[in-house]
Amino acid sequence: MITGKNQIAGAFSGGGSHTFRTVNPVTGDENPQEFFEADQTEIDRAVNLASKAFTTYRDTSGTSRAVFLEAIATQLEAAEEEIIAYYTLESALPEGRARGEFARTTGQIRAFASMLREGSWVEAIISNLEGKLDIRRVQCPIGPVVVFGASNFPLAFSTAGGDTASALAAGCPVVVKAHPMHAATGELVAQAITNAVRETGMPEGVFSNLNGKNFEIGQRLVMHPEVKAVGFTGSINGGTALYRLACTRKEPIPVYAEMGSVNPVVVLPSALREKRDFWAEQYAGSITLGTGQFCTNPGLLLGIEGRELDSFIEALGEAIGQRQASCMLHPNIKSQYLEKRDEVLSLPDHAIVTAPEPEAEGNFALPHIIAVDAESYMKNRLYQQEVFGPFSIVVKCKNKTQLIEVLQNLEGQLTGTVLSENTSELQEFSTVINVLKERVGRLIFNGVPTGVEVCAAMVHGGPFPASTDSKFTSVGLTAVQRWVRPIAFQNWPDTLLPDALKNNNPLNIVRNLNGVMTKNAV
Amino acid sequence: MITGKNQIAGAFSGGGSHTFRTVNPVTGDENPQEFFEADQTEIDRAVNLASKAFTTYRDTSGTSRAVFLEAIATQLEAAEEEIIAYYTLESALPEGRARGEFARTTGQIRAFASMLREGSWVEAIISNLEGKLDIRRVQCPIGPVVVFGASNFPLAFSTAGGDTASALAAGCPVVVKAHPMHAATGELVAQAITNAVRETGMPEGVFSNLNGKNFEIGQRLVMHPEVKAVGFTGSINGGTALYRLACTRKEPIPVYAEMGSVNPVVVLPSALREKRDFWAEQYAGSITLGTGQFCTNPGLLLGIEGRELDSFIEALGEAIGQRQASCMLHPNIKSQYLEKRDEVLSLPDHAIVTAPEPEAEGNFALPHIIAVDAESYMKNRLYQQEVFGPFSIVVKCKNKTQLIEVLQNLEGQLTGTVLSENTSELQEFSTVINVLKERVGRLIFNGVPTGVEVCAAMVHGGPFPASTDSKFTSVGLTAVQRWVRPIAFQNWPDTLLPDALKNNNPLNIVRNLNGVMTKNAV
Repeated sequence: MITGKNQIAGAFSGGGSHTFRTVNPVTGDENPQEFFEADQTEIDRAVNLASKAFTTYRDTSGTSRAVFLEAIATQLEAAEEEIIAYYTLESALPEGRARGEFARTTGQIRAFASMLREGSWVEAIISNLEGKLDIRRVQCPIGPVVVFGASNFPLAFSTAGGDTASALAAGCPVVVKAHPMHAATGELVAQAITNAVRETGMPEGVFSNLNGKNFEIGQRLVMHPEVKAVGFTGSINGGTALYRLACTRKEPIPVYAEMGSVNPVVVLPSALREKRDFWAEQYAGSITLGTGQFCTNPGLLLGIEGRELDSFIEALGEAIGQRQASCMLHPNIKSQYLEKRDEVLSLPDHAIVTAPEPEAEGNFALPHIIAVDAESYMKNRLYQQEVFGPFSIVVKCKNKTQLIEVLQNLEGQLTGTVLSENTSELQEFSTVINVLKERVGRLIFNGVPTGVEVCAAMVHGGPFPASTDSKFTSVGLTAVQRWVRPIAFQNWPDTLLPDALKNNNPLNIVRNLNGVMTKNAV
Repeated sequence: MITGKNQIAGAFSGGGSHTFRTVNPVTGDENPQEFFEADQTEIDRAVNLASKAFTTYRDTSGTSRAVFLEAIATQLEAAEEEIIAYYTLESALPEGRARGEFARTTGQIRAFASMLREGSWVEAIISNLEGKLDIRRVQCPIGPVVVFGASNFPLAFSTAGGDTASALAAGCPVVVKAHPMHAATGELVAQAITNAVRETGMPEGVFSNLNGKNFEIGQRLVMHPEVKAVGFTGSINGGTALYRLACTRKEPIPVYAEMGSVNPVVVLPSALREKRDFWAEQYAGSITLGTGQFCTNPGLLLGIEGRELDSFIEALGEAIGQRQASCMLHPNIKSQYLEKRDEVLSLPDHAIVTAPEPEAEGNFALPHIIAVDAESYMKNRLYQQEVFGPFSIVVKCKNKTQLIEVLQNLEGQLTGTVLSENTSELQEFSTVINVLKERVGRLIFNGVPTGVEVCAAMVHGGPFPASTDSKFTSVGLTAVQRWVRPIAFQNWPDTLLPDALKNNNPLNIVRNLNGVMTKNAV
């Protein structure tokens, strides 16, 4: 049952005087439930209780945190039907996507639980060579974390998404600033987490869920002295503003913001020649998936001009032209989409590849593709901005040198893709690939950038403005590294050391023992 | 031979119109050599050549970078006598310290070389379970790094210090902003690096050394768009200002600043009782080592009030009272020391444990210790500021609860120390230890905080303001992690993968292969 209230350390709280409602994107109507915005008292209570919970939660064993995470996954599954119903109501995303994202969410929570049970993620290092000091270091949780939910992933990047799961895994309490577009979905997920907190006897302050439509609520959370780090998924403007705000604190804290990207795709001649229809179809799918509302949406395709590129563009236009209109996440997202798209369309020197005629009605959208020569693309900086939605630009480069120039002038990106059917061609274009590599967090060969696998090797992040800190990923197991810091113990008595560092290795984890990775005792 | 010029990518450059001289701290006189401050053209040239060098240096093998680092160490050794002569002239630190720091500097350069030869530091992760995408990630260098030399470590934290060595190891070109107090030492070290660049055929832009007394030179370096990260060792004000400045850039970059700390030492009752004279003598040494000019200088000793603490204070005062005056690094450092010390001395409610009578002359200083009760200490925030020099405060707490309260109110610290002779006492004071742990990067048992071992497990960093990013250390092998970011390769052809990720593991490194740490091929 949805109450519209904040959940603070296990208790419902609706003391604020400001309320808001979510919108049904399909009809444009407001949903009936009122949500109470968190006020300053509630913000303080949530953070202070998180800080108090930290004093015990930080010392819980990996196994007990694994049990907690697994209980969250199970509680989510118990509420699956209700969650899916609100998810589709609030986001207009289709049920198939909802089920897929739901499974990914519980899957990644359980993956973090497995990581905790295995235990080596704490990166234990023991240096105790003869004649030297005995020094041992291990990763320890940093303290209360604030997580901002994302509009486009109500489950996998929101209340119980990757940021929350990784922070809880690390040993950090979490205060979620729920995304106002899917507050009901968020409340149901928060209830599942709260149930799991009770069931597994965790300190109640370990999780709170706060509602807020006003940006100030997020800003206050970021500025709260007891908050030690922030996870954010959203726009470049929003993420950068919070990052810069956190830097002005008396004690600055990191803001790990995963933001915008146009995800350049370099289509090399052999791919145009040998796989034209295949890639046209694949990219028609990737560009329109989720109405283009993915951070890994391919917004920029690059090729060398000529008959083969023209033919590919034509095939792409045809494949995309057959797509149906689909609903966007929110009327505001639709209007921002149109605004940004039309800004780009107002630039000179491009050709329409495919355009919606007529424009889709209401909150629905149809894909829109344009083509432009590299010179014009580089001359008009606005061509490079991310247009969040089903919009892509094909850039025609005169030659390899100009292709390199375009890539060199790109901002940081989450992904970069290369399509090719020929190994010697890859050698020929090695500079292109090297330049692309410096711009991205993930390189993809012969694939599409949408579809971010949750695994240990994933990097979902990249040079600014793809993310605020290219050292870290918000997807995959190493996402946990954002919420820990190393502490070294010098000459510390064995009985007082964290288990990960004790002589006899009671956790049976892999440790760096004087340079050797081993499970051996000291 | 000292030229007073900047060294930019192997060439001497002295085009600027501003010059300065270093000072002989013992006499207070200026040394004869003029040093040319870098101007904007020189800053641009150094950074742009670093950026150009990056396009090849980033792809050099670990082995070739190891050869380069070892050549730096050897070149330094060839110039050892001249370096030591200028080091002692410019810093007034004794020859024994100079030799020790020299050996540490070449030792840590060679330790990074060994790390490169072994190769596993790149943290290769391969996820390719059946039915999933093949994704592989590896740490890659981020680009040109600016390193600020430190006043108190002309070798180990300056031109060829840990920041430079770790950045060069990572594959990042380095532009050093030399510390103006030891510009001649810096120039000699820079010449050794330049020789090593030539000898091993590295791209010349991989290293430059710029002089500057004016803060603006450092600020311009931090704001240069081609600079991708900054290493800094120095004051809280200086480091925080650069950190905040970097955050205002169009593309924000990380500033890893290792700054101030008072390094609290908790002296538990059994240590007072059983090891009074031993610890009094040890701490007299630690407080006065290098005239107290260490970032790990113990500026704060905490104990439970009573006859035993009083007796310890008396013994400490006696041990310290026997110390000779020693010379500080620079007249400015002496005057800042006196200013900050006298600010603290002007606070109410403390007792003098030992004070210099008469005050040491010129640029020399004698240690100064005061004792204060915990209540007054907490009431007057200024008691907590770092006084860079041979000054320490002993805080008398009424009981364990008050000791905890003092620790809870401390800012972040590089180190925290516990002295105890009794295991059950450690249990009794476990909350004290836990609170201390949250404040520090390194915990020390029965030791002194000065003397930072260079090893894989070292953490020299801590919660703000000890450093700007508590995730990283500026000493020890993991210092390299500041200069890299992970890149993931999805479905990437084996021949094009970095060697660290290739199927047959040609580097023979330990990799995380689907969760198992192994040297096995894929």
